[in-house]
Amino acid sequence: MDSNSKKAIRNIEDEDYIPNLSYDSVIFGFNGEQLKILILEYHNTGLFALPGGFVKRHESLDDAVKRGVLERTGLDKIYFEQFHTFGSLTRSDSDVMKRILLGNSFDLDTNKWMLDRFISVAYYALINYDKVTLKPDLLSDSINWYAIDELPPLMMDHEKMVDKALNVLRNNIEKKLVGMNLLPSKFTMKQLQQVYEAILGENLRRTTFQRRILGMNILERHEKLYQGKAHKAPYLYSFK
Amino acid sequence: MDSNSKKAIRNIEDEDYIPNLSYDSVIFGFNGEQLKILILEYHNTGLFALPGGFVKRHESLDDAVKRGVLERTGLDKIYFEQFHTFGSLTRSDSDVMKRILLGNSFDLDTNKWMLDRFISVAYYALINYDKVTLKPDLLSDSINWYAIDELPPLMMDHEKMVDKALNVLRNNIEKKLVGMNLLPSKFTMKQLQQVYEAILGENLRRTTFQRRILGMNILERHEKLYQGKAHKAPYLYSFK
Repeated sequence: MDSNSKKAIRNIEDEDYIPNLSYDSVIFGFNGEQLKILILEYHNTGLFALPGGFVKRHESLDDAVKRGVLERTGLDKIYFEQFHTFGSLTRSDSDVMKRILLGNSFDLDTNKWMLDRFISVAYYALINYDKVTLKPDLLSDSINWYAIDELPPLMMDHEKMVDKALNVLRNNIEKKLVGMNLLPSKFTMKQLQQVYEAILGENLRRTTFQRRILGMNILERHEKLYQGKAHKAPYLYSFK
Repeated sequence: MDSNSKKAIRNIEDEDYIPNLSYDSVIFGFNGEQLKILILEYHNTGLFALPGGFVKRHESLDDAVKRGVLERTGLDKIYFEQFHTFGSLTRSDSDVMKRILLGNSFDLDTNKWMLDRFISVAYYALINYDKVTLKPDLLSDSINWYAIDELPPLMMDHEKMVDKALNVLRNNIEKKLVGMNLLPSKFTMKQLQQVYEAILGENLRRTTFQRRILGMNILERHEKLYQGKAHKAPYLYSFK
């Protein structure tokens, strides 16, 4: 299956990939205060997109996502979760793909499989963006974090993907926070509230938030966090 | 794209379909008491499977699922929801597909695209099985409801699909019940408890269940349902 290594570097061999199937990733970054999304800009096109890619014939879908995101962003060992497969007839745009291929000096003929219809499996991840160094890949001018309310216009149905990912995240915020390791294993109520506020995109009242969260019975209370005035020390919590 | 109508009926034309991509459906049936799943048995193979199929090049993924399930089960106008795309390298089994094709007198050569690797988008639905009449398709001996704790052994990764669908359903039971129209628009606490018990697969204590549900603040209380002794009439509820 790997007899194509002699061909020009500016081809992505269609024999190596499953046709008509791609993936895209919504990578949420959070640094304790702000929620951002990772966006690529393609060379010479002015097109902004979610990091995505294709699935090799001999790799699992999950491995393709890990490989692709590592190659395209430099991010390793991210915990991804699938949230939806986008399969409408109108989502693919061969003109957009042409611009990307031409903008990167790809040959249109040998790469025409990329102009076909693609059904795309979308994944999301939630990471601490202070801890990563990004590197754009060959195809991209830049890769950057954008605040969720300041995204550039995204190509094809990528804005729909972001909306859906945000919805899934917001609707399952308790479950996701436990799995995603965004907080230290013990945290204060204030830290937890900051995560909620960033993800939900709104300010919450401290007393209401605290009552709601404690009522959910998902937290275990530990010792107090002493720093500064002892009588004001907040309790530490962990997820049960 | 439809130039193949003269060919033998026992071919499914590969040019018509997106290669390497299929769907499968976990159709939960509920009649107010028991939760069951719809299972097909393939002709002359002894193989049991979830209803599934392929996506045509010129139809959306969602439309393919609707069309396929209608053709294969006679079920129309079901509300489906995607829950996961299965993309492991080991999930496809060309021997199983060969048995199905041979058991149905398909020609292996012209249908060999079906022996390839498939990534499968899985959907689930929740319907009232008292209200449907099933009809098996050409490929299948029978199509039947099986109680979730009495399923026959399923082919390939279809048991994994059922487990995952059940998990999603159980973890989101409140949200799903609202969307799935399993209950009449106004229902009693007892009816609601029966749905929960069937989906969760366990008996619940009436008082605990009632307190938990009312605490969720998802129900609106209406008039009493008078039948028999008036002083025992239960309240009717609807989802907010």
